[in-house]
Amino acid sequence: MQGTRLDTERIRAVRRLIDPVFLDTPLYPCEALASTLGCAVTIKLETANPVRSFKGRATEVVAGLLAEQGAQAVVCASAGNLGQALAWSGRGRGLAVTVVASRSATVAKLDRIRALGARLELVDGDHEMARERAAALARYDGIRLLEDSLDIETCEGAATIGLELVGSPPSFDTVLIALGGGALATGVGHVMKALAPEVEVICVQPLGAPAMTLSWRGRRVVTTDSARTIADGVAGRCPVPAVLDDLLLVADDAVLVREESIVAGMRMLLDHAGLVAEPSAALGVAAILEDPARFAGRHVVTIVCGGNVDPDAYHRWVGTAPVRGS
Amino acid sequence: MQGTRLDTERIRAVRRLIDPVFLDTPLYPCEALASTLGCAVTIKLETANPVRSFKGRATEVVAGLLAEQGAQAVVCASAGNLGQALAWSGRGRGLAVTVVASRSATVAKLDRIRALGARLELVDGDHEMARERAAALARYDGIRLLEDSLDIETCEGAATIGLELVGSPPSFDTVLIALGGGALATGVGHVMKALAPEVEVICVQPLGAPAMTLSWRGRRVVTTDSARTIADGVAGRCPVPAVLDDLLLVADDAVLVREESIVAGMRMLLDHAGLVAEPSAALGVAAILEDPARFAGRHVVTIVCGGNVDPDAYHRWVGTAPVRGS
Repeated sequence: MQGTRLDTERIRAVRRLIDPVFLDTPLYPCEALASTLGCAVTIKLETANPVRSFKGRATEVVAGLLAEQGAQAVVCASAGNLGQALAWSGRGRGLAVTVVASRSATVAKLDRIRALGARLELVDGDHEMARERAAALARYDGIRLLEDSLDIETCEGAATIGLELVGSPPSFDTVLIALGGGALATGVGHVMKALAPEVEVICVQPLGAPAMTLSWRGRRVVTTDSARTIADGVAGRCPVPAVLDDLLLVADDAVLVREESIVAGMRMLLDHAGLVAEPSAALGVAAILEDPARFAGRHVVTIVCGGNVDPDAYHRWVGTAPVRGS
Repeated sequence: MQGTRLDTERIRAVRRLIDPVFLDTPLYPCEALASTLGCAVTIKLETANPVRSFKGRATEVVAGLLAEQGAQAVVCASAGNLGQALAWSGRGRGLAVTVVASRSATVAKLDRIRALGARLELVDGDHEMARERAAALARYDGIRLLEDSLDIETCEGAATIGLELVGSPPSFDTVLIALGGGALATGVGHVMKALAPEVEVICVQPLGAPAMTLSWRGRRVVTTDSARTIADGVAGRCPVPAVLDDLLLVADDAVLVREESIVAGMRMLLDHAGLVAEPSAALGVAAILEDPARFAGRHVVTIVCGGNVDPDAYHRWVGTAPVRGS
């Protein structure tokens, strides 16, 4: 493999900075899903922790390093999960955390960011506007700007999931990874290509927010005018060039899925696996639902990367008659 | 502590028989629940595994020992979770598993038992009738009868949860344990009294199926004519004397909760913690809801012991407007 910006030894080393509550998450076969989807499905569950998403792995690394350097403050833009995780990691280390989010972000995520003691600033517009405002705040206050997917700690924190996948026995054929800014995909993808190159790395993004997938396919940055999806965690419009370069090295494919498949995936994870997944975390199941022939008889790992949903919206998505097994 | 039938060193030793997929389950603070319930709440999550309940810990021990002894078959009565777990553990070791269940058991659990390759026999009547039939089958076929809570492996398997509670840092005041036949309560309770005697052990049972609680309070076996609760996993009528003796040594209290509190607990676990709990697994939250003053300001661990629900029933229970935080 040509070199990504990530380093496997550094990924192994950053584990020491991460609170164990985020590590060694459940990894288990879900036969009820398998019989419904027509392929063996193993779940990597990143929702059973204090912030209900995988982002704690990254923010623990960032906050740990900042604390070692004597920093006192940090700011990030977030659709909610990164902000919540940074608030949690910063609080434990005495860091003042500011999170900039879109006014249209998931309310449950914003509530949790405030409850964790971070300063929350809301901006009109979407996530890209929040990124600009966070950068301005960092310049003005002279504090660290944490940029998701661009900052290598966010990728290498997420990459620790990859170490836990390759370290455990039953080998698998494919890993399905939610694709947004690219931290999770490049992180896990790097580890797969370095330590288990036989595993196919497939990234999954909503059809309504396809910027990174279009960029990967075109091998150059493609931005979009809008991002229309319920999968708020992956709703970016402006891919970061350095992250795209890494993704080009580690992804075997990038696929786009429809909103109704994401909802069906959430309902299937609830009814057949007993798991509450946020829309981004159902992208893997959505990809199987849209192309069952591709996965038939294969052994697939899907990373259930977050479970932060607004209860009202979630009940609306999953509240009708349950999905029946085949 | 006077001696229970359990042995702490043996509990440590049986861990080697248990597939790691059932061990070291998530243990984490849930601040969203805490702010709603008025006490610090730590979750011990036993649902993120191939059988979605804690029973795999016990059946791994049983099946492991049977395989070492060259046994070929085993039978148990089950409300569903033990049967599912025994089917899973037996399949992996070439054991022929028969499960006897009530015709009124949770359909999703029965479906999974069949899907895991066990022979399923349904009886009219309740769980006590299934126990009688399983005993008759064992005598007739000359095979091992696994009796939940009576057989020490079921208690010591469950007790490995206790080892994981005391082994981890943040100390807590109280552990809330679902009480049915008593394997979970005597198992975890034994470890608490042996290794963390300052922790209060509170067992929680449905008001509609109170036999073991009434027995604990009266210090003698009390049976009931019926068991009326949606918490199928703890709906026994005839406590086992030896298990009661152990429970008298390890439980600090046993409380009864109403059905509406169990439903409210399930909804709260879904909306505030993103967890699918079966009714038995919501008993701890139900106990806090019924007596908030008792737990105010304390640090409580609740074991979310299972997540096997019929989708239809679950949607009915949790499907209305979400529970609002206080």
